[in-house]
Amino acid sequence: MDVFDAIKKRRSIRQYLKKEVEEEKLLKILEAARQAPSASNRQEWRFVIVKEPATRARLAIAAKGQKFVEEAPVLIAVCAQTDNHTMTCGQLCYPIDCAIAIDHMTLAARALDLGTCWIGAFHEDQVKKILNIPSEIRVVELLTLGYPKELPASTKDRLPLDAIVSRERWQNL
Amino acid sequence: MDVFDAIKKRRSIRQYLKKEVEEEKLLKILEAARQAPSASNRQEWRFVIVKEPATRARLAIAAKGQKFVEEAPVLIAVCAQTDNHTMTCGQLCYPIDCAIAIDHMTLAARALDLGTCWIGAFHEDQVKKILNIPSEIRVVELLTLGYPKELPASTKDRLPLDAIVSRERWQNL
Repeated sequence: MDVFDAIKKRRSIRQYLKKEVEEEKLLKILEAARQAPSASNRQEWRFVIVKEPATRARLAIAAKGQKFVEEAPVLIAVCAQTDNHTMTCGQLCYPIDCAIAIDHMTLAARALDLGTCWIGAFHEDQVKKILNIPSEIRVVELLTLGYPKELPASTKDRLPLDAIVSRERWQNL
Repeated sequence: MDVFDAIKKRRSIRQYLKKEVEEEKLLKILEAARQAPSASNRQEWRFVIVKEPATRARLAIAAKGQKFVEEAPVLIAVCAQTDNHTMTCGQLCYPIDCAIAIDHMTLAARALDLGTCWIGAFHEDQVKKILNIPSEIRVVELLTLGYPKELPASTKDRLPLDAIVSRERWQNL
């Protein structure tokens, strides 16, 4: 699938078919994450792939009871094994670098007719306990993965370009 | 360009041709950013497009003298107009959401035969002064954009999948 199509047609999918994700497709998606760039090539991302229904059910509770977290056949806990390094600009490396890897996964999944949803609404301590994640590791996001039950027709509204882009200098738009 | 190709063939480009970026291509790239998902559709990203040579030269100094920052015909200051909202997981929304938008731009640029480079090595206060960016706005990254002088043959080495992926539970890999 063309990259512009993948960007345009990606949706946040919150309803999934009861259909397994082929291991071959999962590996392609993880490979897309693996190829992501990161600050000084730090690659702090680590991925825990969860398919066991009982674990998914517990993770759904940790994700504030969001039912689709349990219904998706695959859940990817995106973690960071990090030293909390910050760039000169003041930003932490790991959330940005993990986000790049996740974005690659969402676009790769879309190209393979799979759906994903970014989940930041979860209690990190509970997720760590469920997945035996050491205290020094951060869990940045959960990502659901599976075949969409239906494809929402459109994304949520987006601000127009002239509300987000200025030229040469900052402008209050 | 296929999304897997764009992911695989994207490089960090630090040498640029003296060739302008067509406005049509720039708009396609910004449109790719605009379509990015964000936490609760907050869309905190704001983009300042810099083409003026004198401004690029000043920004290069703020970016610790990195010469290619000045040589790239377009520099995009990716800013966040943010209330510093954090998700339940504890992560700030804006760095992750800006990273998604930037990743979209890097892949869109690659598909249009353009090169980009993420830059976090800059002094935020200096960039804000140069671009008249208000103090409450964050500058998350600078992104160079232009036609690559040459395409590096390969990306930097990446960890293999078995060093970054575990199944069902965390494993020390």
